Formats: sequence, structure tokens, C-alpha cells
Amino acid sequence: MAKHIVYPYQSLFDYIVRVFTACAVPEEDAKIAAQVILAADLRGVASHGITRLFSYYADKLRNGTILAQAKLNILQESSATLALDGCNGLGQVIGHKAMQMCINRAKQTGVAFATVRNSNHFGIAGYYAMLALPENMIGICLTNSQPLVAPTYGKKAIIGTNPIAVAIPAGQQRPFVLDMATSVVPIGKIAIYEKAKEDIPAGWGTDNEGKLTTSPSAVRSGGALLPLGGPDILRGYKGYGLAVLVDILSGVLSGSSFGSQVGKITKEKPHGNVGHIFGSIHIEAFRPLVDFFGDMDTLLQEIKESPKAVGQTRIYIHGEKEFERAESCQENGVPLLAETVESLELSGSGIQVPFDLNPLREVDLPL
Amino acid sequence: MAKHIVYPYQSLFDYIVRVFTACAVPEEDAKIAAQVILAADLRGVASHGITRLFSYYADKLRNGTILAQAKLNILQESSATLALDGCNGLGQVIGHKAMQMCINRAKQTGVAFATVRNSNHFGIAGYYAMLALPENMIGICLTNSQPLVAPTYGKKAIIGTNPIAVAIPAGQQRPFVLDMATSVVPIGKIAIYEKAKEDIPAGWGTDNEGKLTTSPSAVRSGGALLPLGGPDILRGYKGYGLAVLVDILSGVLSGSSFGSQVGKITKEKPHGNVGHIFGSIHIEAFRPLVDFFGDMDTLLQEIKESPKAVGQTRIYIHGEKEFERAESCQENGVPLLAETVESLELSGSGIQVPFDLNPLREVDLPL
Repeated sequence: MAKHIVYPYQSLFDYIVRVFTACAVPEEDAKIAAQVILAADLRGVASHGITRLFSYYADKLRNGTILAQAKLNILQESSATLALDGCNGLGQVIGHKAMQMCINRAKQTGVAFATVRNSNHFGIAGYYAMLALPENMIGICLTNSQPLVAPTYGKKAIIGTNPIAVAIPAGQQRPFVLDMATSVVPIGKIAIYEKAKEDIPAGWGTDNEGKLTTSPSAVRSGGALLPLGGPDILRGYKGYGLAVLVDILSGVLSGSSFGSQVGKITKEKPHGNVGHIFGSIHIEAFRPLVDFFGDMDTLLQEIKESPKAVGQTRIYIHGEKEFERAESCQENGVPLLAETVESLELSGSGIQVPFDLNPLREVDLPL
Repeated sequence: MAKHIVYPYQSLFDYIVRVFTACAVPEEDAKIAAQVILAADLRGVASHGITRLFSYYADKLRNGTILAQAKLNILQESSATLALDGCNGLGQVIGHKAMQMCINRAKQTGVAFATVRNSNHFGIAGYYAMLALPENMIGICLTNSQPLVAPTYGKKAIIGTNPIAVAIPAGQQRPFVLDMATSVVPIGKIAIYEKAKEDIPAGWGTDNEGKLTTSPSAVRSGGALLPLGGPDILRGYKGYGLAVLVDILSGVLSGSSFGSQVGKITKEKPHGNVGHIFGSIHIEAFRPLVDFFGDMDTLLQEIKESPKAVGQTRIYIHGEKEFERAESCQENGVPLLAETVESLELSGSGIQVPFDLNPLREVDLPL
């Protein structure tokens, strides 16, 4: 258990906007970025939320690694495709705008894909996929990321945790929202175990020789995360394949960095050059919405109501827990880890945007 | 090790064509189906190959569960999409034609998707994805299948092993071809362990209470396969999410059966009603082919040449082993398990198409 401090959603939102505008980001763009960042905290993915406000975004805006005045140029287009250049802007703004362009195109053609090169880390992929939901479309978003995963039979981390996000609307049921890294766990999970001086389960990572390890430090110092599936006997090469697939579609097809080069900053390459791909599928291009929604409800209900394993009481649909949590946080406030708050206070005062919000209360929550 | 009998590719191909035409399938369609079926044997997925010729296809053609005269009707279309009705024909013929239609559409629009309802089991999904390769396109193929997998925290097999196949061309390197079930292993793998009276590794399946089991019989009698990731601690809910995603895109979006109903035959529902979805992405719609191929080669080479884990000598790209095997089988013959040959002899004589081919030789190979 760890101390958390709870803040109203709106005051956190306003604070992030103040930080971004202080970094020369236009207000409209700052609002988009704030929304994406807090979507992570709301949905229970604190690792991708406000805790990264300075280290991933504001600090980089201030040192020029990320450019504050974002442009999104069309490099090439056909009726159902867009190849975009993010011009090293803020990933959230690029992602939001690219997905909207993709959605608009799919209204005409039934399906559309948009690639983006020269982008940056954009938070949770699920946010962009979910933009398709109000349009009665299926939303897809993939991105590559810094190398942390070793290929099966390899020992060097040369592939990202490259997530796959797909959002699909239903009728009475909540939408199906799959938003998953293609590694077993994210690197942040290993760090939590290291800090708590606890062993990790066998199957999460390897040491610097490529052997399975239960030592979180061994994974973080020269080791690697394992792809989904984990060890060979449980078919980790499938997760490795999914990770490479995401790298090809978001990195190679877009013309961004890929493999070990993603996110790498050098004098010659001063920007991260992350790549994304966005997709939209217009459901009505395939069958009447009412039929699709009816069948979605039937499928999701069948799964939820199916017999439980011994000791279990509930089967979850992907996104269900996150929707419930987000609604509760919107109403009752967003809990931030006390250490995150301390770090925001320190960084905020460093750029004269003090983190001086009024908390609602303190709570103890599991890490 | 088990006895295998090796036959020339062409004589197996001709035999399958004879069987299908004897079941009233037009010769052109029979040749397509033969090609798809043998692609499995060539690529080392014998479980999906000629061993199923009678039980999955010929027997069903003869009892009317699968219709020999296949039609493929367009239910709905937009510039980049097709919603097709397979009219309960042979899955391989439907799949081949649907993918070709999808590819043709993507030449105009840059990307295209085609759904199919009222189809049947179509063999390996990778075959259809690979049809995009000679067109310099990325090919995608998903299908749902009969329920064998339990959702995380559930104990009843209500989801298929729903495979994902994506084929992507490269320059000097072989294409990247991911063709994976979304379960840890296929049910055929469990059957092999049961027959050999060996325990399965923990993480492949559950018993009839939803508990992990090492007994192959427990999985096959009332238990279930585990989704990719395996147990909860290794994030099996991601594989469960992928399996549901495939069911939605190929089953719900197409208007086919989904969940526990896939492949179920009753008096009221005399056909399997399997659903598929095919996708094609025209690489040149996003960037010049020469740049894409160059980057593909760089990425695949970086992975293959990266440091090996202790005890390992080679890192494989997805599809690499299969290409090597297929080339060898085309040249040196296709090994069939002796039991498969016996079964073909029995079934073939039953319909007056005797399996009387001249074998090249006998070999002992691992199961």
C-alpha cells in the first residue's frame, strides 16, 4: 500500500494546460495533451499519466527535443490512406489530429489508415482508438517505442513494448477496448518490484545472458523484458511476432525510426522519431449498425455470463474495469501517488508553474 | 519419432483435386483448395493439411454441410470495403477469391478490407495473407473458429483459437509472415501429448474447474485451452483479448456466427457459418517501395544479427523456418505421417478415389 493524494479532475487538467502553455504550446494543443495524459490516470495506467508530465514532455519541450508548435504535414495520400509527418511535435497532439483525419476519411471509403513519422511518445494508445467510438467506428492505434524487449532466443533489448489498441462500440454493453503492450509487463512494473525488493515471477524478463530471471534488477541492468507469452514453452515467439508487426506498421511503413533506434536522441538525430499508425473501420460499411450492436451485446454477454473458474466471481471484458474506474475518478477525484505529487511540486516550481492545487483527501492504495 | 512416408508435391496435389472433383467441386476451385491444403503440409503445419482432407472437407461436401458449387455474393460495398457472403461453400475457395477482391480494391484506394459470412474452415490463415506479397502489399487475414478457449477467470471453452495472420514483403530478406493462433497451443498439440501419455507444461490448458492442469486428458474432456500469455500472472488476458478481437472482426462485423456458436451444426443451422476478414495495405500508398524494402531489410537483419541468449545460435524471423521447409518439401517431397496415409487410403477407397500414389521413401521424424 502507498499514500495517494486525491485531486479533482478539472484542477489537474487546468494545471497540465498551464504547464504546456508555459512551454510555448498553443492553448488548444495543450488541452488535447492534458486530456490524453489524464486519460491514463483515469483508466488506471498511472505509469503513462501525469507522472510523466515533466520527464517525458515539458522537459523535452524546453530543451527542443519536442517542438512546441506542432505541424502535421501530408506527405502522400490516396482515398483511404494518409502518410503524415508529425514534424517532431507533441505526440498527443499529433496522435489526436491524425486519428481525426483517419476517421473523416473512413466516412467516405469505409476504412482508412494513417501513418505518422517524426512523432514522439503519445501516452496511452487506447485514447486514440477510442476516438472512433462516438462515430460508430472501430478504432485502431499502434505505435513503436524505445527498445526494451528481446526477440525469442536473443538477449538484447532491441524491440519496443509496441502496444496494440483497438476500440469497438457495442449496444447496451460498454465498448470493447483492448489496449495492451506486446510485452508480458511494462518496464514500470519491473521497477515497482525492484523498489519493493521483491522477486518478479519467472516469465516476465531475462538477465544479461538471456536467461529467465526473477531478479528485477537483472532485467533493468542489461537484461530485457519478455514478449507476450513469456518463455518459449508458452510461445513467447508469438508476442515477439506481434511486437515486430507493430514496429513494421508504425515504424517502417511510416518512414520513422524502428528497432533499436526508436526514441534514441543523438547530436545527429535530435528528435525521438517515433512512428504510429491509426486505422478506422466504418461499421455501417459492412452491416447495419443495429445488427452489429445486437451481436456485440450477445457476444460480450455470453462471455461475461459464462461459468467462472473455481475461486473467481467475475469475467471482465477488455476496457470494462477502466471505464468503471474512469467514471469514479471523474466524480470522486483522481488519486496521485504521493511521490508523484512531490515530483510535480519540484518540477513545477522550477518553471514557475507551481503545483499548488487543493487536494480532496488522502488515501492508501496498492501500487 | 514417428514413421512418415514421403510423396512428391505434384502427386499429392493431383490426388486432392481428384477427391474434390469427385465431390462435385469444379476443377478450378478444387485446384485452389488443393494449393491451400498443401501449403499447410509444406509449411510444417501438418495438423491443418491433407490429414483433414476427408474429415473437414470431403465428408462435409458429401453430406451437404459444405456446398460444392461455391458462390461469393457481394452484400454491401464501398470504395475500400466489401461485405461478402460465402453461401456455405468451401472455405479455401471463398478465402482465396475474397482476398483477391480485397487486393484489387486496395490498388485503387491504398487499403481495403473484406468480411465474409457463411464460410467454413479454410485451412491456414497465412496462405491468404501471403497472396498480397507478389502485389507488394501487406496482407491480413483473421478468422474465427470453433470454441476451444476459456476467457480469463472463466472455465468454459466459448472462444475459438482465432488466428491472426499478417504477411509483409521485404527486399533481400524473406517476407515477414506471422501466422499464429491466439491460444498458447492448438488443440492438436494437446492430443499429441495425450496419445504419447505425457504431461503438458503448466500454462497450456485448464481442467473442468478452470484450474491449470498438466493432464492433456483433463483439457480435452471438459477443460479448455488457455489464451496466449497462459496463466493470469503472465497476462493471459491479453491473448484472451486478441481472441475476442478476432471474433468481433471476423464474426460479428461480417454477420457470421461468433462465440460458442462458430462451426456448430444443428438441424436448424446445417452449416458451420464461420466468419473471416481480409485486409490489404498498398505499401506504395505510404512511401516508395525501395525505401520500405530497405528499411525492412535493416530491421530484420538487426533482429537476426542481435546477440543470442546463452545456448542459442539463431534468432528466427516469423515465416523464415516455414519458407525453408516449404522449399525443401517442394524439391524433396512432402512427408506424411504413416497414420495419415492409412487414413487417406481408407477414406479414398470409400469414395472410389484410391490413394495409390508412389511414395519417394520412408523417414522417421519427430511428431
